[in-house]
Amino acid sequence: MPRVSSSLSALGQRTSEPPISWLIKTTLERPHLISLAAGFTDGPTLPRREAATALLQILRSRGTGRAALQYGSTAGLPALRERIAARLRQADRTAPRGRSADAYAPARLVITNGSQQLLYLITEALCDPGDIVLVEDPTYFVYLGIAQSHGLRLGGIRMTSEGIDVEHLAATLERLRRTGELRRVMFLYLVTYDQNPTGVTTSLERKVRALALLRRYEKDAGHRLYLLEDAAYRELHFGGEPVCSALAAGDSDRVIYAGTFSKPFATGVRIGFGLLPPALLGPVLRIKGNHDFGSTSLLQHLLARVLASGDYERHLAALARRYARKAALMTSALRAHFPASVSWHEPKGGLYVWVSLPGHVPAGPKSRFFARALDRGVLYVPGELCYAEDPARPRPRHELRLSFGGASDEEIRTGIARLGAVAHEFAARTRASANSSGSRS
Amino acid sequence: MPRVSSSLSALGQRTSEPPISWLIKTTLERPHLISLAAGFTDGPTLPRREAATALLQILRSRGTGRAALQYGSTAGLPALRERIAARLRQADRTAPRGRSADAYAPARLVITNGSQQLLYLITEALCDPGDIVLVEDPTYFVYLGIAQSHGLRLGGIRMTSEGIDVEHLAATLERLRRTGELRRVMFLYLVTYDQNPTGVTTSLERKVRALALLRRYEKDAGHRLYLLEDAAYRELHFGGEPVCSALAAGDSDRVIYAGTFSKPFATGVRIGFGLLPPALLGPVLRIKGNHDFGSTSLLQHLLARVLASGDYERHLAALARRYARKAALMTSALRAHFPASVSWHEPKGGLYVWVSLPGHVPAGPKSRFFARALDRGVLYVPGELCYAEDPARPRPRHELRLSFGGASDEEIRTGIARLGAVAHEFAARTRASANSSGSRS
Repeated sequence: MPRVSSSLSALGQRTSEPPISWLIKTTLERPHLISLAAGFTDGPTLPRREAATALLQILRSRGTGRAALQYGSTAGLPALRERIAARLRQADRTAPRGRSADAYAPARLVITNGSQQLLYLITEALCDPGDIVLVEDPTYFVYLGIAQSHGLRLGGIRMTSEGIDVEHLAATLERLRRTGELRRVMFLYLVTYDQNPTGVTTSLERKVRALALLRRYEKDAGHRLYLLEDAAYRELHFGGEPVCSALAAGDSDRVIYAGTFSKPFATGVRIGFGLLPPALLGPVLRIKGNHDFGSTSLLQHLLARVLASGDYERHLAALARRYARKAALMTSALRAHFPASVSWHEPKGGLYVWVSLPGHVPAGPKSRFFARALDRGVLYVPGELCYAEDPARPRPRHELRLSFGGASDEEIRTGIARLGAVAHEFAARTRASANSSGSRS
Repeated sequence: MPRVSSSLSALGQRTSEPPISWLIKTTLERPHLISLAAGFTDGPTLPRREAATALLQILRSRGTGRAALQYGSTAGLPALRERIAARLRQADRTAPRGRSADAYAPARLVITNGSQQLLYLITEALCDPGDIVLVEDPTYFVYLGIAQSHGLRLGGIRMTSEGIDVEHLAATLERLRRTGELRRVMFLYLVTYDQNPTGVTTSLERKVRALALLRRYEKDAGHRLYLLEDAAYRELHFGGEPVCSALAAGDSDRVIYAGTFSKPFATGVRIGFGLLPPALLGPVLRIKGNHDFGSTSLLQHLLARVLASGDYERHLAALARRYARKAALMTSALRAHFPASVSWHEPKGGLYVWVSLPGHVPAGPKSRFFARALDRGVLYVPGELCYAEDPARPRPRHELRLSFGGASDEEIRTGIARLGAVAHEFAARTRASANSSGSRS
């Protein structure tokens, strides 16, 4: 590569290679690698038949065919937005306080190129360099790339098995108030359903308490403090009770809800959406107008059609069975092949198992553990990549994010067995080295 | 709408409603309106059959079906990038100095969501607020929105019937050098084929001279000065000789080439591309990774398939015949219905006729002319929107961009007849008022 030209903008100079790019590239370039890394979805259940049927119906009709091959509006196809709004409202039907119809108005929806584009648009609309976003610790690592590119500072909020530690959020907000930095805080970003990477689902009660805290600190912040709820994995759920979204917490003017059809339908059909507080709708649509003045009509028609036909719901049910089985296969392989000192969270949805090695075994991208795993033909996401840079704590380096999404049964069995062998080797070696060096702990 | 929240970023606050959003919205909301405004393409020739055939073939095969429904790389589908690179090279085969193979390397290509996303990515990668971009005067009005959103200053370079006035470019660069502002100039943006809005095609000779000027001023700028060639309409050409791209000028490390399949294939299939100098490839891919980590695989497979099958070339040939006929229909209607004081450029490609009213008839978005046309059920793009804010000259306000793309034959006839009546009315009125007020000119 030639040197980077000095004419790059501040953003151009800041933006570093997102880990997902090299993970996807490494996977695509090494066909024999067992990838338990990138968030690819299950190949055999990809909806080839459903997509073909819907696309044929759309294109055979002159009316829908022409509309699907022509520009739409920047906000997106009205029929799709209505279906999404109705489904969100239905998904939150058990909300204890009742729901405001306004919170689920189709007019609040914007269709995006995956929910990723929504995260980007929100960050552009709200954040200047030096601003602060509060994130889960660990969080969705691709968001860390967006934040870094925009020169943001991040504050990590500790995770528990029910979602963020609300006491830690309160302490963090209070600390930022005292240091005068609360004015730079723009929003709290939570991946609330079967979180990427930990698999944790945040309870509604936690979301309600988080919103109350944000509200309380708004006066000191001098502006609204939003909760950005990333629900990317909400429809890949296969265990436990359904949980209402933050939209059901009775404060929807503070909630930005990001959803997607990428994971539950097809990652090759990059359609996501945002449901936005009215104050943000105009700014986000204007910025999206400059990005692309609207996502592809054809794929929006495709999703509207599979939602209308029932094919989408049937597909979700099949996916839930499939992923439940693959998750169980992965965790039973972990039990069989990993040392007893390794622990993980039993997934009830999503695509990932979050594995903790003994604390003294680093598994980051430059670790010997990672290199050894790659030598054995297995790729994983080093957990380290999922932690924000935060001066308040060192990044944990002993965790792995393992995906059962794209891997076949055989790849899961073989991949986990090979990783397990590496884990045994390092656990033993570290014990030996710990023993030989005496009482160092 | 509630007030815009004060928590918006600088970019969020700067970004104003792009005209294309309200043009598309106005069109979609008024089904009886004759829109000669938005760049919709011809409905009856939209490739419904070609798209359906290709999509079925892709989805029926397990291999391609799964690949098309799964994530690809951020840069895009290799098979599509190879086809695009080969076509660009072939299109420039008549280049007088021979072409460098490097200039057309598939590795330089990134697939984007329409060429619009490429314009956005380049602006993000290169420009900070206060930087200067040189544009044609008039230029593609959606680019003006991107520039405004990023806080850029624009310098308009006069147009002639062969493209920009190179002497004016030289004078502008020299003036910026003298005022010490050359360091803020980042690139020259040209819409080189059947330009939107004027219909002018820039000769290769002009592009060569523009590149030479940019090269000459680089030392004073302190960085590379790029030529961003937007070739969106290159494949919608139906008259005159083909013209080589700036890539053929022997200086491809200074040329950013933006192309698209939106207009020539389907605007509902938002796939465009950029061919970039190596120094920009990494930065642009990293930013695109944050936007969406890659455009939809399904539609990239679709385009690769129609390019491979020959359906795309056959479609282009049919489009050329169709648009030639519609353009002739529009200009003959203009001759029949407009006063003799109105002039226009005879299009040889693209989707637009650029019409000049007498200089004293304002036709901007707030003019009585525009309101009267809308009353009569006809929408056009006021030419005023296509001019950058430039303190060096007042914005011309007497021009219209009329599109023959989306309108039917009947709509073209009726729309032009109605607009002609409005033009007669205003020309007469203005004459009368000019007469009554004596010698004011």
